[in-house]
Amino acid sequence: MEIAIIMFDDYETLDVFGPAEIFGRLTDIYNLKFYSLKGGVISNRHGVPIMTEKLEIINSIPEIVLIPGGWGTRKEVDNLLLIDKIKELAQSSNYVLTVCTGSALLAKSGLLNGKKATSNKRAFAWVASQNQNVDWNKKARWAIDGKYYTSSGVSAGMDMTLGFLADRHGIDFARKVAKEIEYNWIEDKDNDSFVVE
Amino acid sequence: MEIAIIMFDDYETLDVFGPAEIFGRLTDIYNLKFYSLKGGVISNRHGVPIMTEKLEIINSIPEIVLIPGGWGTRKEVDNLLLIDKIKELAQSSNYVLTVCTGSALLAKSGLLNGKKATSNKRAFAWVASQNQNVDWNKKARWAIDGKYYTSSGVSAGMDMTLGFLADRHGIDFARKVAKEIEYNWIEDKDNDSFVVE
Repeated sequence: MEIAIIMFDDYETLDVFGPAEIFGRLTDIYNLKFYSLKGGVISNRHGVPIMTEKLEIINSIPEIVLIPGGWGTRKEVDNLLLIDKIKELAQSSNYVLTVCTGSALLAKSGLLNGKKATSNKRAFAWVASQNQNVDWNKKARWAIDGKYYTSSGVSAGMDMTLGFLADRHGIDFARKVAKEIEYNWIEDKDNDSFVVE
Repeated sequence: MEIAIIMFDDYETLDVFGPAEIFGRLTDIYNLKFYSLKGGVISNRHGVPIMTEKLEIINSIPEIVLIPGGWGTRKEVDNLLLIDKIKELAQSSNYVLTVCTGSALLAKSGLLNGKKATSNKRAFAWVASQNQNVDWNKKARWAIDGKYYTSSGVSAGMDMTLGFLADRHGIDFARKVAKEIEYNWIEDKDNDSFVVE
């Protein structure tokens, strides 16, 4: 299954590479591809330069679309080219996963309308303001609505990815992967200890 | 402070980008640079292509050297060019941090001789066999000996990095960063729940 990771300038490092570590090690099942509108090197304020391919050259629909967050989303919510491309890919794919403020980009596409979703607890008001037709859940570590998985901030992307594996391959499989990366997986998607009251 | 991250083919994704997320967001204090022997794009079996500069062009000594692990270390322990470069940089820098089997590369340089160190619990025997003059600690989440910080596997690199911040800037500072990335930091460096008996 191809996982198309949608990159843009000033993405959040761990939003991308937490899930990439988890999916990436399952080479028998998942295949990571990094895309961006312009292709080439995409970097961020952390100074992490990643090579990407141009989104327009995607020639087969990816099974999974992964959308990270980061400061760059503040600008990209107004990038209609990117939002349209996200909408096109997300509609056709089997699953869409967002991390942190990545859910703001997906919400902008309208595909989350009437659906349960969450986001970074520290940027929640801003994300929710991008589309008030989404059923925003402030308490979740990650939320699931059909094919849409949306996670809370940064590290929560790893918990969601392990939860996604549990849903596809069983809880024992996901726990084994968490153990392999010596990660204390937060298994409960509904109660995030980082909720800001 | 410049952090020189030493990249090589088939590095472990999160070994690099967990610490990169934590240091990277502290742009007032730390500055990430990615280096490799050959420069250019370095990738791994996860399919994560990162841009690097050539190690030979480092023109000022980095304050911190970060060495990830990964399957590539099995080959790189015999790469004398790389081990020599690591030795040269590690001797001159203020701090050296390794994640997972990255400690095997540092151990090969001889700089860990007589010092406390740890590594990935699932690859411990192999790592320890690279240099038996190191005081290998099987129980630690991460170990500290003077300027040398060595962590257990993959996610433990994030715990060690937060521990490093606590040592430099205080525990409250480190806890604040952990909270910002919504990460459940394992603060106890001496007891790793992933120890394999």
